[in-house]
Amino acid sequence: MKCRVCRGKAVIQVRRHNANFCQEHFIDHIHRQVERTIDDFKMFGPDHRLVLGVSGGKDSLALWHILTYVGYRVDGLYLQLGIGDYSSESLTLSQQFAAERGLKLEVVDLPSDFGFAVPEAAAASRRTPCSACGLSKRYVLNREAESRGYDVLVMGHNLDDEAATLFSNVLGWNVEYLGRQRPVLPATDGGLCRKVKPLIRVAERETAAYAVLNGIDYEVEECPLAAGNTINRYKEWLNRLEEQSPGIKANFLFGFLERGSVHFSDAEDVELVSCSNCGQPTTGELCAFCRLQAVTFSRKQDL
Amino acid sequence: MKCRVCRGKAVIQVRRHNANFCQEHFIDHIHRQVERTIDDFKMFGPDHRLVLGVSGGKDSLALWHILTYVGYRVDGLYLQLGIGDYSSESLTLSQQFAAERGLKLEVVDLPSDFGFAVPEAAAASRRTPCSACGLSKRYVLNREAESRGYDVLVMGHNLDDEAATLFSNVLGWNVEYLGRQRPVLPATDGGLCRKVKPLIRVAERETAAYAVLNGIDYEVEECPLAAGNTINRYKEWLNRLEEQSPGIKANFLFGFLERGSVHFSDAEDVELVSCSNCGQPTTGELCAFCRLQAVTFSRKQDL
Repeated sequence: MKCRVCRGKAVIQVRRHNANFCQEHFIDHIHRQVERTIDDFKMFGPDHRLVLGVSGGKDSLALWHILTYVGYRVDGLYLQLGIGDYSSESLTLSQQFAAERGLKLEVVDLPSDFGFAVPEAAAASRRTPCSACGLSKRYVLNREAESRGYDVLVMGHNLDDEAATLFSNVLGWNVEYLGRQRPVLPATDGGLCRKVKPLIRVAERETAAYAVLNGIDYEVEECPLAAGNTINRYKEWLNRLEEQSPGIKANFLFGFLERGSVHFSDAEDVELVSCSNCGQPTTGELCAFCRLQAVTFSRKQDL
Repeated sequence: MKCRVCRGKAVIQVRRHNANFCQEHFIDHIHRQVERTIDDFKMFGPDHRLVLGVSGGKDSLALWHILTYVGYRVDGLYLQLGIGDYSSESLTLSQQFAAERGLKLEVVDLPSDFGFAVPEAAAASRRTPCSACGLSKRYVLNREAESRGYDVLVMGHNLDDEAATLFSNVLGWNVEYLGRQRPVLPATDGGLCRKVKPLIRVAERETAAYAVLNGIDYEVEECPLAAGNTINRYKEWLNRLEEQSPGIKANFLFGFLERGSVHFSDAEDVELVSCSNCGQPTTGELCAFCRLQAVTFSRKQDL
């Protein structure tokens, strides 16, 4: 197995690109994929103030490494979700990563800043933990990025994440979600920060390989609450399809972005108003996060 | 396992309806599913002249049986594709079915009426056999239904067929095909016969069970040219998803028809003209069937 670029000994095979790479040229390849994504979708330029949602996992730390390497100044924003040892280990790894590289990491604590942890909210709202977590992350990261004056919130969703979400939205024909599933969501006057996903051309196994090859110490454990969740199951399905037809996952996602997405652009044409409690943008009277918080507080009082 | 209706001994479980049925009430259930589909999509009424595309397989023979049972007068139209023993056995079974029930079966022979068999056309055009076959069936059945004065061409596509085709069109984001994937395609002035699919609420294993329970003698062999084709692989994938989440296949298809399909209605807004060779509707100068025929004839002359 020889590197496509230098014919040296390859360390990884990327079947959908029909290519093998040595360590050096694999790292180059990943950098080019990310730079190409930033350019193609006009995600941001050198003068934007960037903040990255950091979880301590391979994707966000690899992306932080990549963006810094190719010349962007990016701060990190870590949200402590209150998921026991998993959260404290992830925080430590994120802090070590930032400290070793002289990067700035801002930390927000869901339990102390917002009054509840993800497991409590999931139980109180009868949502799955992943649903309560996703809602909290989207809300808090957006609010903190906006209020701290950043221009762009950068997220570490990879190809597998995006393809599995698309798969889920297509299986259930959630047309509003299909309208919103784009690599760039523009800022709005009402308080939505510009949100971008530069890692969507890079598969999960590639971000893991990138992290290992660059000596990045990341949280290798899966979140203990996410075992068997729907998106993970869809990732497995797509990986089995990918084994039989390399490239099918990327074609599915990029085919959607190139040809499918435009057909749903009117589906997300909803008017945003300010939440009557927190002032953040929402479609109803009270935003979903404030409703989650309220039901969790009310349940705590009952106990 | 007891019948949902009469509490007698059930012979089949239909997990997505969370129901078991005895023979009598399963047959009733299938009849109701088909009648509901005909009504919901306003497919046809008692005064329409109906012709059913008959292959000799479980789906078309079961549908012929169902439609006749619930009171429609339907003729059959069989297309002999020239696939060796498979074609001759299917024809015999179709003729027996029609003769035993006093139904009219019209037979068209691709090799003698159009000059080529499916395997030759596939080889000459470098299409897969399923692609050459599908194109020939769509063309000939439409042309013969139209020229023989029928109002509606009825097709036996079941839930699994439609869901797998949708899955394929979504994986590749073939937006023109998504625009055309509907249970009713209206007639056009230019020569397209109204086409309907009343079996889309019935899964493949249910049409098989229906055929067996009604003593219908159908072609049980798969087409020898179809082994491992893409649609069959997607059927297997969807069946595995269905095992984990009963109903996901029907939700996928009917979610598309209810909420997704409308977003692609402009994608099939193409102008049809008459083929310069045969006069049938097409988007180009020469229709795809005439091109297939031409390349097959040219290859035969070369040999």
